[in-house]
Amino acid sequence: MEFLTDKTDGETLYKLILSLVVPRPVAWVSSLSREGIPNLAPFSFFNAVNDEPPVLMISVSNRDDNTLKDTVRNIMDTREFVVNMTSEELLTKMIKTGQDVPPSEDEFKLAELTPSPSKLVKPPRIAEAPVSFECKLYKYVPVYDMHVIFGEVLLIHVKDELLDEKLNVNYEAYKPIGRLGGDYYVKAYGNCKIKR
Amino acid sequence: MEFLTDKTDGETLYKLILSLVVPRPVAWVSSLSREGIPNLAPFSFFNAVNDEPPVLMISVSNRDDNTLKDTVRNIMDTREFVVNMTSEELLTKMIKTGQDVPPSEDEFKLAELTPSPSKLVKPPRIAEAPVSFECKLYKYVPVYDMHVIFGEVLLIHVKDELLDEKLNVNYEAYKPIGRLGGDYYVKAYGNCKIKR
Repeated sequence: MEFLTDKTDGETLYKLILSLVVPRPVAWVSSLSREGIPNLAPFSFFNAVNDEPPVLMISVSNRDDNTLKDTVRNIMDTREFVVNMTSEELLTKMIKTGQDVPPSEDEFKLAELTPSPSKLVKPPRIAEAPVSFECKLYKYVPVYDMHVIFGEVLLIHVKDELLDEKLNVNYEAYKPIGRLGGDYYVKAYGNCKIKR
Repeated sequence: MEFLTDKTDGETLYKLILSLVVPRPVAWVSSLSREGIPNLAPFSFFNAVNDEPPVLMISVSNRDDNTLKDTVRNIMDTREFVVNMTSEELLTKMIKTGQDVPPSEDEFKLAELTPSPSKLVKPPRIAEAPVSFECKLYKYVPVYDMHVIFGEVLLIHVKDELLDEKLNVNYEAYKPIGRLGGDYYVKAYGNCKIKR
C-alpha cells in the first residue's frame, strides 16, 4: 500500500508512523519547574545523536489544547533535565507518568518513585532507573509543532550490576524495553536478543 | 557507577551510549550521488520526530578519516533520500551495506538487493524492504562532528501483508529488528512483544 502524506489524514499518519518506526527507545525525562516542582514523563521520539560528548535528542509534542507540556516548559526555563532509561520492571510506573496531570502534581509521588539528587544538574534522577543521563540543554530545534530538544550528557549513572569489568552491558540485568505501536512494547533481552 | 563525560575517554563513551540507549530503530537509507550512483547504508541514531507531516531524523558520523560519508554528501547534493525499514530476514544484507566501500560501488549489487523506482524522489527504494519512506531534506543541524538530517516524508510504502483493514500493523509479518550494543540486535515481534 502507498500513502501520499499530503493526502492522508492525521490520525492515519500518526498510527502508521508510531507502528512502523520501531522499536523506539524510551526517554523517561525528569525536569524541574522554576518553582521547584519535579516532573516526569516518557517520550519515544528519542535517541542518541552523538557519543563524544554524548548528546541525546527528544521530540515533544504540545498538549491537545496546544499549550506546552511541563517537560518542554521546564527545560526552556531551567536548561537542565535528566533522561532516565526504563526497564520491564518499571514499565507500569513509567506509563503512569505519561498521564496528563496539572503541573502542580509531583509525578514521583504519583508513580511511587524515589527522587535521587543529581550531581551536576538540579532535576533529580529516578533512583529506581537502571541508567540516568544528567543533561544540559544543547540545542532547540522546532519541527512543525514539535519541540526537538538536544541535551548534552554531563554525567552517566549506571547501576553497578549492569556492567562487567570490561564495561559490557548485561542485558539480562538491565531488561530494557522499547516502544512499538498501539499498546505494545518489546523486551530487548533474553531470547529476544540476536547476535549478528 | 558514574561516568563524568568530560573525564571519560571516547572509546568508553561510545561503548556506553551504544549499549545503553536501546533498542534503537534502524534507518536503511538509500540515496543517489550527483552522478547517479545509488548508495545504501544503515543508521541507528534514528527516529521519527513528527507525525503530521511525518518527519524522520538520522544522525550520521564522518568516516574515520573525517570525510563525509556518501549518504551525507548525496543528501546535501540532491536533497532527497529514502528511509527503508529492515526486518529479521534482511539483517545479513543490511549489515553488508554498512561496510565502507568506495562511492563508485553500488551497494544494491553488493548486497544483492533490488532497487525499485520511487514515486516522488529520485533515489530508488529497496524492493525487499517491508516499509519505505520517500523523503525530502527538511532541515540540517550539525551536532559536534555529527550531521543530523531531518527528512520530511512525502510517500509511505508498506507491504500489503503488514496491514489489516483497520491499518493495524501485523508485527509477525513485519518482523522488525532493533539495535542493541556490540554485535546484538533485538527481535521486536512474536513472544518478545508485551502488551501494556
